[in-house]
Amino acid sequence: MTSALLTDLYQLTMLQAYWYERMEETAVFELFVRQFPKERNFLVAAGLEQGLEYLENLAFGDEECQFLAQSGFFEPGFIEYLKNFRFTGDVDAMPEGTIFFPNEPILRVTAPLPQAQLIETRLINLLQFQTLIASKAARCALAAPGKMLVDFGLRRAHGFEAGLLAARASYLAGFNGTSNVLAGMRFEIPIFGTMAHSYIMAHDDEATAFREFAKTQPSNVVLLIDTYDTLKAADKVIALAKEGIKIKAVRIDSGNLEELALAVRRKLDQAGFPEIKIFASGDLDEYVLQHFLDRSTPIDGFGVGTKLTTSSDAPYLNSAYKLQEYAGLPRRKVSPGKQTWPGRKQVYRYHDQNGLFLKDVLTTQGDLLDGTPLLQPVMRGGKRLAPPEPLSIIRTRCAAQLNSLPEALKSLNITASYPVEISPALARLAAETDRRLGLK
Amino acid sequence: MTSALLTDLYQLTMLQAYWYERMEETAVFELFVRQFPKERNFLVAAGLEQGLEYLENLAFGDEECQFLAQSGFFEPGFIEYLKNFRFTGDVDAMPEGTIFFPNEPILRVTAPLPQAQLIETRLINLLQFQTLIASKAARCALAAPGKMLVDFGLRRAHGFEAGLLAARASYLAGFNGTSNVLAGMRFEIPIFGTMAHSYIMAHDDEATAFREFAKTQPSNVVLLIDTYDTLKAADKVIALAKEGIKIKAVRIDSGNLEELALAVRRKLDQAGFPEIKIFASGDLDEYVLQHFLDRSTPIDGFGVGTKLTTSSDAPYLNSAYKLQEYAGLPRRKVSPGKQTWPGRKQVYRYHDQNGLFLKDVLTTQGDLLDGTPLLQPVMRGGKRLAPPEPLSIIRTRCAAQLNSLPEALKSLNITASYPVEISPALARLAAETDRRLGLK
Repeated sequence: MTSALLTDLYQLTMLQAYWYERMEETAVFELFVRQFPKERNFLVAAGLEQGLEYLENLAFGDEECQFLAQSGFFEPGFIEYLKNFRFTGDVDAMPEGTIFFPNEPILRVTAPLPQAQLIETRLINLLQFQTLIASKAARCALAAPGKMLVDFGLRRAHGFEAGLLAARASYLAGFNGTSNVLAGMRFEIPIFGTMAHSYIMAHDDEATAFREFAKTQPSNVVLLIDTYDTLKAADKVIALAKEGIKIKAVRIDSGNLEELALAVRRKLDQAGFPEIKIFASGDLDEYVLQHFLDRSTPIDGFGVGTKLTTSSDAPYLNSAYKLQEYAGLPRRKVSPGKQTWPGRKQVYRYHDQNGLFLKDVLTTQGDLLDGTPLLQPVMRGGKRLAPPEPLSIIRTRCAAQLNSLPEALKSLNITASYPVEISPALARLAAETDRRLGLK
Repeated sequence: MTSALLTDLYQLTMLQAYWYERMEETAVFELFVRQFPKERNFLVAAGLEQGLEYLENLAFGDEECQFLAQSGFFEPGFIEYLKNFRFTGDVDAMPEGTIFFPNEPILRVTAPLPQAQLIETRLINLLQFQTLIASKAARCALAAPGKMLVDFGLRRAHGFEAGLLAARASYLAGFNGTSNVLAGMRFEIPIFGTMAHSYIMAHDDEATAFREFAKTQPSNVVLLIDTYDTLKAADKVIALAKEGIKIKAVRIDSGNLEELALAVRRKLDQAGFPEIKIFASGDLDEYVLQHFLDRSTPIDGFGVGTKLTTSSDAPYLNSAYKLQEYAGLPRRKVSPGKQTWPGRKQVYRYHDQNGLFLKDVLTTQGDLLDGTPLLQPVMRGGKRLAPPEPLSIIRTRCAAQLNSLPEALKSLNITASYPVEISPALARLAAETDRRLGLK
């Protein structure tokens, strides 16, 4: 539950000016990411569901109107206007899980100017964060195919919504689940977890802790073995298994994970327990996962936390939501380094004979090309056109998209840039707009 | 509003084991940051208020119990136990705005083991995030003394709680306000904002946009001048001012801010408007602010957004919440690189004759030293000992603490490490604990 006041003050001061000037004609805004972080070859669109939910519920409550009235910035007539404010516009967007590239709109809003303006802050806030995390998670999935990946990031996430939405975004991009119980409840994501070091430390000895835990969770026995001495703890696990206690896995959270996993695997195998799996956690990210995979380190699953949930190597995107058209006329910003392509746009994707992405073409909305159009209608007149997409469908779409990425773009390092062409129609529109604005 | 399920599943599986084993004796946990990010000489404690609020309201609702019951992890008896679960423990903490150093506990929880355990995830989540942002904001304040600093970060914050709490954390660390309207309402933080590029672009020409805006906001006229051509826009601003329209400031959001500010300042001064201020935004952080200050760039205020709200150069802290004592016995984790000092602890700070920080001493709680003790009682038996501290008081405390930092630690670069001594009493306790655990 958020509030219509979760926005920048300038949205509301602009709204008051539009109200005063009676500027309520149709505006078109598009949300896109300009330059990508240098650590990203591609991004995965996510967060649309929460964006649409926000638009459907947007309204100013009494407390909010009262605060604005006494803030000193607004006239009484404008506050009255806000009381009936609703979003009644149209939204076209890339379905969640779609891979996209620089300057491609992932969402387009067509609505009376004040409505299309007000929603900027929260729409960026919702879509950029989930896109950030889905993209980082997709890299982990590419780096560790076939491994179990679990989001462990809640504690280091930036507040509760970040923890919740990071679980959703990483799941849709290929993770198997999360430790976040609330995300499990809200989004029907599988949840995972067993014990922390404190559980071991609260017992007078480690073997007792293992034994007691196994009694209370007979079908979910994953034992944390690095509190004191990992190899000695592995021996205690084996002793327990020999008593007939069913142990699903051990978890290692510190030390040299590669050496420890090798040594523990050897011990477990020699003792006749090849079915006990090894799960690792602690400071992991896609680069570390790839290292383990390259060396065939015997680790079956990974808990990826902080670096996923903060997208630590690229903690933000150069996301923008810009006016492209107002009252039927294309608009364009030409600030240095922040120039935009004017008008309502569509993105067409082309595939090669193997189904791999070949190139994208950015063009005007009316210019029908023979590629696959990526922006789809999702909201008309403030109402969704379809119920929320199940996460399972988004997850499948994302996996298929990752499968269709050219090999060079799958690399964790920047190896190639993907061609996004500007169509002749769009280039013409930009030139016309510049002439009209007296810019060239 | 959050939920008791905003936690890691392992907290609940451990709780079930504690319930089953009847392990309900008193546990002591401490929250601290191990190694600091290499970009930080010091950190500013923040988030305690939200932590205490969470503890006071912690309870499992019907929907939550139902979800847990059908999750397959828990027994009916344990779910019943959760229905009456409340936090009834004690909390000692550093007041918000206190500067602290590696391995110093900023919060200590003393409570029955299950209670002290469950709260780990959300306590870290709340305190580490605000501490992260307050620390980044304090660096901005140190870099730009006397300048107006405004948080512009909401859109790139990681979700809504991050945006809200970043406004609070940056304000308490020295910012003058935020663009975030909801933060203004919830925390009584001054709010700032006027117009975006889209406002200019929606008008057929820039001068009309400036004039219309000034009419609707006569006491808050800050004009954004970089949409098309910053210097030409400055001329339009001057023409308007010559008509007698009162203009508070201009904002520049792109381009070479230093050159543009110099040129615009010259124009405004020559036209006889030295009182019109220059405000800058766009990709700012403490390093850029310091550069402007070093060069005496004529910019009066700064909107600091993305890099503040994501703490982009250090987007997480190595924060931990560890069991230090259970059932009267000190406990200690010795995992490689994650070793902790056992037992209940206190931090004493010593000052030199000028009132500057000299050193801190980490010792056992009972070892009374003559420095200033930093951990103070804030909650007993699950109830706060005092009403929430006003942000103004926290802000004053933080400013005083920043003033007392030795010069070398105020530097944006790492220049010196601050001495945190381990007292003989604590060293003895650690050795005894190791002997008891058979570790040495």
